[in-house]
Amino acid sequence: MKIIIVGATGTMGKYLANAWEKEHEVIRVGSSSGDFQVDTTSSESIEKLFNQVGPFDALVCTAGPTHVGPWKTMTGKEFKKGLEGKLMGQVNLVLIGQHYINPKGSFTLITGALAQEPVLNFANASAANGAVESFVRAAAIELGNGIRINAVSPTVIEDSPQYFPFFPGDIPVTMQQLEYGFRKSVFGANTGKVIKPY
Amino acid sequence: MKIIIVGATGTMGKYLANAWEKEHEVIRVGSSSGDFQVDTTSSESIEKLFNQVGPFDALVCTAGPTHVGPWKTMTGKEFKKGLEGKLMGQVNLVLIGQHYINPKGSFTLITGALAQEPVLNFANASAANGAVESFVRAAAIELGNGIRINAVSPTVIEDSPQYFPFFPGDIPVTMQQLEYGFRKSVFGANTGKVIKPY
Repeated sequence: MKIIIVGATGTMGKYLANAWEKEHEVIRVGSSSGDFQVDTTSSESIEKLFNQVGPFDALVCTAGPTHVGPWKTMTGKEFKKGLEGKLMGQVNLVLIGQHYINPKGSFTLITGALAQEPVLNFANASAANGAVESFVRAAAIELGNGIRINAVSPTVIEDSPQYFPFFPGDIPVTMQQLEYGFRKSVFGANTGKVIKPY
Repeated sequence: MKIIIVGATGTMGKYLANAWEKEHEVIRVGSSSGDFQVDTTSSESIEKLFNQVGPFDALVCTAGPTHVGPWKTMTGKEFKKGLEGKLMGQVNLVLIGQHYINPKGSFTLITGALAQEPVLNFANASAANGAVESFVRAAAIELGNGIRINAVSPTVIEDSPQYFPFFPGDIPVTMQQLEYGFRKSVFGANTGKVIKPY
């Protein structure tokens, strides 16, 4: 299977790429390194990526930057900018990618427990996650040719301990659990699901 | 109670304003008519509104335009523009309104069943709704001074029959059910809830 991993140079993407590369053709995509580069906030950059990579069977996105900061002084401008990466970046990958993906291919996006379980300072990420989850359900009934789409929703992840203090009491998802979540989407048969790998 | 209704000249807002005006001070806000006008995509316009209206006890928003159109040709640009009204407009009202609302006041936003139950052509509205619902949960743990926030999530509504063909099998929510949903948020004590008035 030819699998594009957008965010392949980050903590999650790197783990997935290493886990799958023996059995599959893994294309590592990063913002500034990897096999190919993409700016997911730019339609032109995404079109260029798909033209370079050619037809593929699965696209996994683990890249989802958002705005993190104090609520009292949060502005609409900051909030909107925070939606660029995790929400619009992933939406762009699907809206454009649908014209390049092979029949019966799959998209797997990244969301997170913040959609249901907020923590202080992360309202923007909560909103982005909620949007991604509903988008996935909507896209699942639109995509043709047996193409599937799901999202994986971890809590804070094992290999990002710098975030633990922001998520008191959240049991970290192990990297292996996370990989199971993505595996379920890419190699399974479901569509329109939000997969909680814990 | 002094209640601002943003979207007061639309189908839902008009019904709420009429239902509550005998017992409360209702401020009708529209985009081009009503007691006051606001462009919810503009921070400046929202600041001006709150300065004109003065301190208030409840803000209800029933205004939520989104992009509706065929999936295959949907662009990121259209999608992003569609998030301006229902998502960013409502986020702006809360981020700015928190500095003007009275202690123990409430915000009530509009979302919809599309967050969980998509229909064709409305992926943008699904995403906006999902974002609003998660935003409401996040904002509920951030707002101080006993200020509450909820969202009301109807299916297609009784007085908008032009939408019925897009929602096959969805039992329309009556205007009275809808009013009950908003009533529960404004005059109740819950916060961080998505209220389904059916």
